[in-house]
Amino acid sequence: MKICEVIGHVWATKKEESLSGLKLMVVKQIDVRSDWESIPYVAADMVGAGIGERVLVVEGSTARHALSRDNLPVDSTIVGIIDSLDVKK
Amino acid sequence: MKICEVIGHVWATKKEESLSGLKLMVVKQIDVRSDWESIPYVAADMVGAGIGERVLVVEGSTARHALSRDNLPVDSTIVGIIDSLDVKK
Amino acid sequence: MKICEVIGHVWATKKEESLSGLKLMVVKQIDVRSDWESIPYVAADMVGAGIGERVLVVEGSTARHALSRDNLPVDSTIVGIIDSLDVKK
Amino acid sequence: MKICEVIGHVWATKKEESLSGLKLMVVKQIDVRSDWESIPYVAADMVGAGIGERVLVVEGSTARHALSRDNLPVDSTIVGIIDSLDVKK
Amino acid sequence: MKICEVIGHVWATKKEESLSGLKLMVVKQIDVRSDWESIPYVAADMVGAGIGERVLVVEGSTARHALSRDNLPVDSTIVGIIDSLDVKK
Repeated sequence: MKICEVIGHVWATKKEESLSGLKLMVVKQIDVRSDWESIPYVAADMVGAGIGERVLVVEGSTARHALSRDNLPVDSTIVGIIDSLDVKK
Repeated sequence: MKICEVIGHVWATKKEESLSGLKLMVVKQIDVRSDWESIPYVAADMVGAGIGERVLVVEGSTARHALSRDNLPVDSTIVGIIDSLDVKK
Repeated sequence: MKICEVIGHVWATKKEESLSGLKLMVVKQIDVRSDWESIPYVAADMVGAGIGERVLVVEGSTARHALSRDNLPVDSTIVGIIDSLDVKK
Repeated sequence: MKICEVIGHVWATKKEESLSGLKLMVVKQIDVRSDWESIPYVAADMVGAGIGERVLVVEGSTARHALSRDNLPVDSTIVGIIDSLDVKK
Repeated sequence: MKICEVIGHVWATKKEESLSGLKLMVVKQIDVRSDWESIPYVAADMVGAGIGERVLVVEGSTARHALSRDNLPVDSTIVGIIDSLDVKK
Protein backbone atom coordinates (compact mmCIF):
# COMPACT_ATOMS: atom_id res chain seq x y z
CA MET A 1 0.00 0.00 0.00
CA LYS A 2 1.15 3.48 -0.72
CA ILE A 3 1.10 6.29 1.82
CA CYS A 4 -0.77 9.13 0.13
CA GLU A 5 -2.33 12.49 0.90
CA VAL A 6 -5.76 13.44 -0.44
CA ILE A 7 -5.43 16.71 -2.37
CA GLY A 8 -8.59 17.14 -4.41
CA HIS A 9 -11.68 15.98 -6.22
CA VAL A 10 -12.31 15.12 -9.85
CA TRP A 11 -15.56 15.19 -11.79
CA ALA A 12 -16.34 13.24 -14.93
CA THR A 13 -19.86 13.29 -16.33
CA LYS A 14 -19.10 11.12 -19.33
CA LYS A 15 -17.78 7.88 -17.93
CA GLU A 16 -18.22 4.12 -17.69
CA GLU A 17 -21.69 3.64 -16.21
CA SER A 18 -20.43 1.41 -13.42
CA LEU A 19 -18.37 4.31 -12.04
CA SER A 20 -21.55 6.26 -11.17
CA GLY A 21 -21.85 6.92 -7.48
CA LEU A 22 -18.20 6.23 -6.74
CA LYS A 23 -16.36 9.06 -4.96
CA LEU A 24 -13.17 9.80 -6.89
CA MET A 25 -10.39 11.69 -5.10
CA VAL A 26 -7.11 13.13 -6.32
CA VAL A 27 -4.21 11.77 -4.25
CA LYS A 28 -0.43 12.04 -4.28
CA GLN A 29 2.00 9.53 -2.80
CA ILE A 30 4.16 11.15 -0.12
CA ASP A 31 7.45 10.35 1.58
CA VAL A 32 7.07 10.41 5.36
CA ARG A 33 10.73 11.39 5.68
CA SER A 34 11.15 14.08 3.01
CA ASP A 35 9.26 16.56 0.82
CA TRP A 36 9.13 14.20 -2.17
CA GLU A 37 5.70 13.67 -3.67
CA SER A 38 4.42 11.77 -6.69
CA ILE A 39 2.50 12.99 -9.70
CA PRO A 40 -1.16 13.29 -8.55
CA TYR A 41 -3.51 10.49 -9.60
CA VAL A 42 -7.08 9.41 -8.88
CA ALA A 43 -8.35 6.81 -6.40
CA ALA A 44 -11.84 5.63 -5.43
CA ASP A 45 -12.67 6.36 -1.80
CA MET A 46 -14.57 3.84 0.36
CA VAL A 47 -13.67 5.15 3.81
CA GLY A 48 -14.82 8.79 3.76
CA ALA A 49 -11.41 10.44 3.41
CA GLY A 50 -11.18 14.25 3.34
CA ILE A 51 -8.81 16.75 1.76
CA GLY A 52 -5.46 16.87 3.60
CA GLU A 53 -5.78 13.47 5.23
CA ARG A 54 -3.06 10.84 4.91
CA VAL A 55 -4.45 7.59 3.56
CA LEU A 56 -3.49 4.04 2.52
CA VAL A 57 -4.03 3.36 -1.18
CA VAL A 58 -4.02 -0.07 -2.87
CA GLU A 59 -3.53 -0.56 -6.57
CA GLY A 60 -4.04 -3.06 -9.37
CA SER A 61 -6.55 -5.89 -9.10
CA THR A 62 -6.55 -5.35 -5.31
CA ALA A 63 -8.25 -1.99 -5.87
CA ARG A 64 -11.23 -3.80 -7.36
CA HIS A 65 -11.33 -6.36 -4.56
CA ALA A 66 -11.30 -3.51 -2.03
CA LEU A 67 -14.55 -2.24 -3.52
CA SER A 68 -16.22 -5.64 -3.04
CA ARG A 69 -17.30 -5.41 -6.66
CA ASP A 70 -14.69 -7.10 -8.77
CA ASN A 71 -16.09 -5.75 -12.04
CA LEU A 72 -15.61 -2.02 -11.39
CA PRO A 73 -13.14 -0.24 -13.68
CA VAL A 74 -11.00 1.03 -10.81
CA ASP A 75 -7.26 0.43 -10.28
CA SER A 76 -6.59 2.58 -7.16
CA THR A 77 -8.67 2.58 -3.97
CA ILE A 78 -8.31 4.34 -0.61
CA VAL A 79 -8.68 1.61 2.05
CA GLY A 80 -7.73 3.39 5.28
CA ILE A 81 -7.19 6.78 6.90
CA ILE A 82 -3.84 6.94 8.70
CA ASP A 83 -4.08 7.91 12.39
CA SER A 84 -0.37 7.76 13.09
CA LEU A 85 2.93 6.52 11.75
CA ASP A 86 5.96 5.51 13.76
CA VAL A 87 9.00 5.39 11.48
CA LYS A 88 12.65 4.76 12.38
CA LYS A 89 14.90 7.71 11.59
CA MET B 1 -6.42 5.92 -12.31
CA LYS B 2 -4.05 8.15 -14.15
CA ILE B 3 -4.92 11.66 -15.30
CA CYS B 4 -4.05 11.72 -18.99
CA GLU B 5 -4.51 13.87 -22.08
CA VAL B 6 -5.51 12.35 -25.42
CA ILE B 7 -2.92 13.34 -28.02
CA GLY B 8 -3.44 11.13 -31.05
CA HIS B 9 -4.58 8.03 -32.87
CA VAL B 10 -2.78 4.85 -33.81
CA TRP B 11 -3.55 2.43 -36.63
CA ALA B 12 -2.51 -1.21 -36.78
CA THR B 13 -3.82 -3.39 -39.59
CA LYS B 14 -1.96 -6.50 -38.55
CA LYS B 15 -3.11 -7.24 -35.02
CA GLU B 16 -4.76 -9.71 -32.67
CA GLU B 17 -8.21 -10.32 -34.19
CA SER B 18 -10.03 -9.49 -30.99
CA LEU B 19 -8.70 -5.91 -31.17
CA SER B 20 -10.73 -5.23 -34.33
CA GLY B 21 -13.25 -2.48 -33.85
CA LEU B 22 -11.61 -1.10 -30.71
CA LYS B 23 -10.73 2.60 -30.87
CA LEU B 24 -7.08 2.99 -29.84
CA MET B 25 -5.90 6.44 -28.74
CA VAL B 26 -2.45 7.78 -27.92
CA VAL B 27 -2.42 9.31 -24.44
CA LYS B 28 0.14 10.87 -22.12
CA GLN B 29 -0.11 11.09 -18.33
CA ILE B 30 -0.02 14.71 -17.18
CA ASP B 31 0.68 16.52 -13.92
CA VAL B 32 -2.14 18.89 -13.05
CA ARG B 33 0.33 21.09 -11.19
CA SER B 34 3.32 21.28 -13.57
CA ASP B 35 4.40 20.76 -17.18
CA TRP B 36 5.60 17.20 -16.59
CA GLU B 37 4.23 14.59 -18.96
CA SER B 38 4.86 10.88 -19.46
CA ILE B 39 6.08 9.00 -22.50
CA PRO B 40 3.01 8.61 -24.77
CA TYR B 41 1.30 5.21 -24.75
CA VAL B 42 -1.87 3.66 -26.16
CA ALA B 43 -5.24 3.12 -24.48
CA ALA B 44 -8.56 1.70 -25.70
CA ASP B 45 -11.37 4.26 -25.60
CA MET B 46 -14.88 3.32 -24.48
CA VAL B 47 -16.26 6.79 -23.72
CA GLY B 48 -15.80 8.71 -26.96
CA ALA B 49 -12.81 10.83 -25.93
CA GLY B 50 -11.39 13.37 -28.40
CA ILE B 51 -7.96 14.85 -29.01
CA GLY B 52 -7.00 17.37 -26.33
CA GLU B 53 -9.42 16.09 -23.69
CA ARG B 54 -8.27 15.15 -20.20
CA VAL B 55 -9.31 11.62 -19.32
CA LEU B 56 -9.11 8.96 -16.61
CA VAL B 57 -7.13 5.87 -17.64
CA VAL B 58 -7.08 2.51 -15.83
CA GLU B 59 -4.36 -0.06 -16.31
CA GLY B 60 -3.57 -3.74 -15.82
CA SER B 61 -6.31 -6.34 -15.47
CA THR B 62 -8.74 -3.51 -14.68
CA ALA B 63 -8.38 -2.28 -18.26
CA ARG B 64 -9.87 -5.56 -19.46
CA HIS B 65 -12.70 -5.43 -16.91
CA ALA B 66 -13.50 -1.88 -18.06
CA LEU B 67 -14.18 -3.23 -21.54
CA SER B 68 -16.68 -5.76 -20.18
CA ARG B 69 -14.83 -8.38 -22.17
CA ASP B 70 -12.22 -9.94 -19.94
CA ASN B 71 -10.45 -11.71 -22.79
CA LEU B 72 -9.39 -8.65 -24.82
CA PRO B 73 -5.62 -8.08 -25.11
CA VAL B 74 -5.80 -4.55 -23.66
CA ASP B 75 -3.93 -3.22 -20.61
CA SER B 76 -4.94 0.49 -20.66
CA THR B 77 -8.49 1.82 -21.06
CA ILE B 78 -10.00 5.32 -20.98
CA VAL B 79 -12.95 5.14 -18.54
CA GLY B 80 -13.98 8.77 -18.14
CA ILE B 81 -13.66 12.27 -19.57
CA ILE B 82 -12.66 14.79 -16.90
CA ASP B 83 -15.03 17.78 -16.57
CA SER B 84 -13.15 19.49 -13.79
CA LEU B 85 -10.50 19.01 -11.19
CA ASP B 86 -10.25 20.77 -7.84
CA VAL B 87 -6.74 20.32 -6.45
CA LYS B 88 -5.19 21.84 -3.32
CA LYS B 89 -2.23 24.10 -4.07
CA MET C 1 10.18 -10.22 -4.49
CA LYS C 2 11.72 -7.06 -3.21
CA ILE C 3 14.42 -6.96 -0.56
CA CYS C 4 13.12 -4.54 2.06
CA GLU C 5 13.86 -3.35 5.59
CA VAL C 6 11.08 -2.91 8.14
CA ILE C 7 11.22 0.65 9.47
CA GLY C 8 7.97 1.30 11.30
CA HIS C 9 4.32 0.79 12.10
CA VAL C 10 1.19 2.47 10.85
CA TRP C 11 -2.18 2.79 12.54
CA ALA C 12 -5.49 3.39 10.82
CA THR C 13 -8.71 3.24 12.84
CA LYS C 14 -11.00 4.10 9.96
CA LYS C 15 -10.40 1.43 7.36
CA GLU C 16 -11.91 -1.35 5.27
CA GLU C 17 -13.37 -3.78 7.80
CA SER C 18 -11.51 -6.74 6.35
CA LEU C 19 -8.18 -5.11 7.27
CA SER C 20 -8.95 -5.43 11.00
CA GLY C 21 -6.45 -7.61 12.78
CA LEU C 22 -3.84 -7.39 10.04
CA LYS C 23 -0.43 -6.13 11.18
CA LEU C 24 0.63 -3.30 8.86
CA MET C 25 4.33 -2.40 8.75
CA VAL C 26 6.19 0.45 7.05
CA VAL C 27 8.95 -0.93 4.81
CA LYS C 28 11.50 0.48 2.37
CA GLN C 29 13.14 -1.39 -0.48
CA ILE C 30 16.91 -1.45 -0.08
CA ASP C 31 19.89 -2.08 -2.34
CA VAL C 32 22.17 -4.74 -0.86
CA ARG C 33 25.13 -3.13 -2.63
CA SER C 34 24.63 0.60 -1.99
CA ASP C 35 22.84 3.10 0.26
CA TRP C 36 19.92 3.54 -2.12
CA GLU C 37 16.49 3.12 -0.57
CA SER C 38 12.94 3.51 -1.87
CA ILE C 39 10.14 5.74 -0.68
CA PRO C 40 8.64 3.97 2.38
CA TYR C 41 5.37 2.10 1.83
CA VAL C 42 3.12 -0.25 3.80
CA ALA C 43 2.99 -4.07 3.75
CA ALA C 44 0.94 -6.62 5.67
CA ASP C 45 3.09 -8.88 7.84
CA MET C 46 2.34 -12.60 8.17
CA VAL C 47 5.71 -13.80 9.48
CA GLY C 48 6.27 -11.74 12.63
CA ALA C 49 8.86 -9.33 11.25
CA GLY C 50 10.37 -6.70 13.58
CA ILE C 51 11.80 -3.22 13.11
CA GLY C 52 15.23 -3.30 11.46
CA GLU C 53 14.86 -6.77 9.94
CA ARG C 54 15.44 -7.39 6.25
CA VAL C 55 12.45 -9.08 4.63
CA LEU C 56 11.07 -10.40 1.34
CA VAL C 57 8.00 -8.49 0.12
CA VAL C 58 5.63 -9.60 -2.65
CA GLU C 59 3.30 -7.23 -4.47
CA GLY C 60 0.19 -7.15 -6.62
CA SER C 61 -2.31 -10.00 -6.67
CA THR C 62 0.41 -12.22 -5.13
CA ALA C 63 0.18 -10.18 -1.94
CA ARG C 64 -3.43 -11.31 -1.55
CA HIS C 65 -2.57 -14.93 -2.28
CA ALA C 66 0.18 -14.77 0.35
CA LEU C 67 -2.46 -13.98 2.95
CA SER C 68 -4.47 -17.07 2.02
CA ARG C 69 -7.48 -14.80 1.80
CA ASP C 70 -7.82 -13.64 -1.76
CA ASN C 71 -10.41 -10.99 -0.93
CA LEU C 72 -8.30 -8.83 1.40
CA PRO C 73 -7.56 -5.29 0.16
CA VAL C 74 -3.78 -5.71 0.41
CA ASP C 75 -1.22 -5.27 -2.39
CA SER C 76 2.08 -5.77 -0.48
CA THR C 77 2.85 -8.60 1.95
CA ILE C 78 5.96 -9.62 3.89
CA VAL C 79 6.48 -13.34 3.17
CA GLY C 80 9.89 -14.05 4.68
CA ILE C 81 12.57 -12.76 7.04
CA ILE C 82 16.01 -12.80 5.40
CA ASP C 83 18.66 -14.76 7.34
CA SER C 84 21.48 -14.14 4.92
CA LEU C 85 22.29 -12.98 1.42
CA ASP C 86 25.21 -14.06 -0.72
CA VAL C 87 25.63 -11.60 -3.59
CA LYS C 88 28.36 -11.45 -6.24
CA LYS C 89 30.39 -8.24 -6.08
CA MET D 1 -0.21 -0.63 -24.41
CA LYS D 2 3.32 0.50 -24.94
CA ILE D 3 4.67 1.72 -28.26
CA CYS D 4 7.80 -0.35 -28.87
CA GLU D 5 10.32 -1.13 -31.60
CA VAL D 6 11.47 -4.69 -32.25
CA ILE D 7 15.26 -4.78 -32.03
CA GLY D 8 16.29 -8.43 -31.80
CA HIS D 9 15.80 -12.07 -30.99
CA VAL D 10 16.59 -14.12 -27.93
CA TRP D 11 17.25 -17.85 -27.68
CA ALA D 12 16.86 -19.96 -24.56
CA THR D 13 17.23 -23.73 -24.81
CA LYS D 14 16.73 -24.39 -21.13
CA LYS D 15 13.31 -22.97 -20.30
CA GLU D 16 9.83 -23.68 -18.99
CA GLU D 17 8.45 -26.36 -21.32
CA SER D 18 5.32 -24.38 -22.11
CA LEU D 19 7.47 -21.65 -23.72
CA SER D 20 8.53 -24.04 -26.50
CA GLY D 21 7.43 -22.83 -29.90
CA LEU D 22 6.80 -19.26 -28.77
CA LYS D 23 8.67 -16.61 -30.75
CA LEU D 24 10.48 -14.33 -28.29
CA MET D 25 11.59 -10.90 -29.52
CA VAL D 26 13.71 -8.21 -27.88
CA VAL D 27 11.82 -4.90 -27.84
CA LYS D 28 12.40 -1.41 -26.48
CA GLN D 29 9.70 1.13 -25.61
CA ILE D 30 10.13 4.30 -27.67
CA ASP D 31 8.93 7.89 -27.41
CA VAL D 32 7.25 8.97 -30.64
CA ARG D 33 8.29 12.55 -29.93
CA SER D 34 11.93 12.22 -28.82
CA ASP D 35 14.96 9.90 -28.87
CA TRP D 36 14.18 8.41 -25.46
CA GLU D 37 14.09 4.62 -25.32
CA SER D 38 13.64 2.08 -22.53
CA ILE D 39 15.91 -0.70 -21.39
CA PRO D 40 15.36 -3.58 -23.87
CA TYR D 41 13.15 -6.43 -22.68
CA VAL D 42 11.55 -9.55 -24.15
CA ALA D 43 8.01 -10.05 -25.49
CA ALA D 44 6.24 -13.00 -27.10
CA ASP D 45 5.18 -12.29 -30.68
CA MET D 46 1.82 -13.47 -32.03
CA VAL D 47 1.51 -11.19 -35.06
CA GLY D 48 4.66 -11.88 -37.09
CA ALA D 49 6.58 -8.71 -36.22
CA GLY D 50 10.01 -8.13 -37.76
CA ILE D 51 13.15 -6.30 -36.69
CA GLY D 52 12.73 -2.53 -36.94
CA GLU D 53 8.92 -2.54 -36.86
CA ARG D 54 6.98 -0.44 -34.37
CA VAL D 55 4.56 -2.56 -32.37
CA LEU D 56 1.95 -2.46 -29.60
CA VAL D 57 2.97 -4.43 -26.50
CA VAL D 58 0.68 -5.43 -23.62
CA GLU D 59 1.96 -6.43 -20.20
CA GLY D 60 0.95 -8.25 -17.04
CA SER D 61 -1.92 -10.73 -16.98
CA THR D 62 -3.13 -9.24 -20.28
CA ALA D 63 -0.04 -10.65 -21.99
CA ARG D 64 -1.23 -14.15 -21.11
CA HIS D 65 -4.78 -13.44 -22.29
CA ALA D 66 -3.38 -12.16 -25.58
CA LEU D 67 -1.86 -15.58 -26.18
CA SER D 68 -5.23 -17.27 -25.71
CA ARG D 69 -3.50 -19.61 -23.31
CA ASP D 70 -3.84 -18.20 -19.85
CA ASN D 71 -1.30 -20.60 -18.34
CA LEU D 72 1.77 -19.53 -20.34
CA PRO D 73 4.60 -17.95 -18.31
CA VAL D 74 4.63 -14.76 -20.38
CA ASP D 75 4.17 -11.18 -19.10
CA SER D 76 4.74 -9.15 -22.32
CA THR D 77 3.14 -9.84 -25.70
CA ILE D 78 3.22 -8.05 -29.06
CA VAL D 79 -0.43 -7.67 -30.14
CA GLY D 80 -0.22 -5.38 -33.19
CA ILE D 81 2.12 -3.90 -35.78
CA ILE D 82 1.73 -0.12 -36.01
CA ASP D 83 0.92 1.18 -39.51
CA SER D 84 0.78 4.82 -38.58
CA LEU D 85 0.58 7.20 -35.69
CA ASP D 86 -0.99 10.64 -35.68
CA VAL D 87 0.19 12.57 -32.62
CA LYS D 88 -0.47 16.19 -31.65
CA LYS D 89 2.72 18.25 -31.46
CA MET E 1 10.05 -10.62 -19.58
CA LYS E 2 13.06 -8.91 -18.18
CA ILE E 3 16.61 -9.79 -19.15
CA CYS E 4 18.40 -10.39 -15.85
CA GLU E 5 21.67 -11.76 -14.49
CA VAL E 6 21.72 -14.11 -11.51
CA ILE E 7 24.00 -12.62 -8.86
CA GLY E 8 23.35 -14.49 -5.62
CA HIS E 9 21.31 -16.54 -3.22
CA VAL E 10 19.06 -15.58 -0.33
CA TRP E 11 18.10 -17.62 2.72
CA ALA E 12 15.03 -17.13 4.87
CA THR E 13 14.23 -19.63 7.59
CA LYS E 14 11.15 -17.84 8.85
CA LYS E 15 8.82 -17.62 5.88
CA GLU E 16 5.43 -18.51 4.46
CA GLU E 17 5.26 -22.31 4.63
CA SER E 18 4.41 -22.66 0.96
CA LEU E 19 7.79 -21.15 0.03
CA SER E 20 9.64 -24.14 1.50
CA GLY E 21 11.66 -26.00 -1.10
CA LEU E 22 11.61 -23.13 -3.59
CA LYS E 23 15.06 -21.99 -4.78
CA LEU E 24 15.25 -18.22 -4.37
CA MET E 25 17.91 -16.36 -6.35
CA VAL E 26 19.05 -12.74 -6.27
CA VAL E 27 18.85 -11.22 -9.77
CA LYS E 28 19.42 -7.82 -11.34
CA GLN E 29 17.88 -6.58 -14.59
CA ILE E 30 20.61 -5.68 -17.09
CA ASP E 31 20.80 -3.60 -20.26
CA VAL E 32 22.29 -5.62 -23.11
CA ARG E 33 23.62 -2.42 -24.64
CA SER E 34 25.11 -0.57 -21.65
CA ASP E 35 26.37 -1.01 -18.08
CA TRP E 36 23.03 -0.04 -16.52
CA GLU E 37 21.66 -2.48 -13.97
CA SER E 38 18.63 -2.47 -11.66
CA ILE E 39 18.44 -2.71 -7.91
CA PRO E 40 18.84 -6.44 -7.10
CA TYR E 41 15.67 -8.35 -6.24
CA VAL E 42 14.63 -11.96 -5.63
CA ALA E 43 13.11 -14.48 -8.05
CA ALA E 44 12.11 -18.13 -7.73
CA ASP E 45 14.12 -20.40 -10.02
CA MET E 46 12.46 -23.30 -11.86
CA VAL E 47 15.08 -23.91 -14.55
CA GLY E 48 18.31 -24.53 -12.62
CA ALA E 49 19.98 -21.17 -13.23
CA GLY E 50 23.46 -20.53 -11.82
CA ILE E 51 25.35 -17.46 -10.66
CA GLY E 52 26.47 -15.29 -13.59
CA GLU E 53 23.94 -16.65 -16.09
CA ARG E 54 21.63 -14.37 -18.03
CA VAL E 55 18.00 -15.35 -17.57
CA LEU E 56 14.43 -14.41 -18.51
CA VAL E 57 12.32 -13.30 -15.53
CA VAL E 58 8.53 -12.91 -15.48
CA GLU E 59 6.68 -10.86 -12.89
CA GLY E 60 3.26 -10.35 -11.37
CA SER E 61 0.56 -13.00 -11.54
CA THR E 62 2.52 -14.63 -14.38
CA ALA E 63 5.25 -15.54 -11.90
CA ARG E 64 2.75 -17.71 -10.03
CA HIS E 65 1.48 -19.32 -13.24
CA ALA E 66 5.09 -20.12 -14.21
CA LEU E 67 5.38 -22.21 -11.05
CA SER E 68 2.32 -24.27 -11.98
CA ARG E 69 1.05 -23.59 -8.50
CA ASP E 70 -1.13 -20.50 -8.61
CA ASN E 71 -1.27 -20.16 -4.84
CA LEU E 72 2.45 -19.64 -4.15
CA PRO E 73 3.40 -16.23 -2.70
CA VAL E 74 5.87 -15.46 -5.51
CA ASP E 75 5.84 -12.44 -7.84
CA SER E 76 9.08 -13.01 -9.85
CA THR E 77 10.14 -16.28 -11.49
CA ILE E 78 13.09 -17.28 -13.70
CA VAL E 79 11.57 -19.07 -16.72
CA GLY E 80 14.54 -19.48 -19.08
CA ILE E 81 18.33 -19.36 -19.34
CA ILE E 82 19.45 -17.17 -22.24
CA ASP E 83 21.75 -18.92 -24.74
CA SER E 84 22.18 -15.95 -27.02
CA LEU E 85 20.81 -12.56 -27.89
CA ASP E 86 20.92 -10.88 -31.27
CA VAL E 87 20.19 -7.16 -30.85
CA LYS E 88 20.26 -4.38 -33.44
CA LYS E 89 22.86 -1.72 -32.67
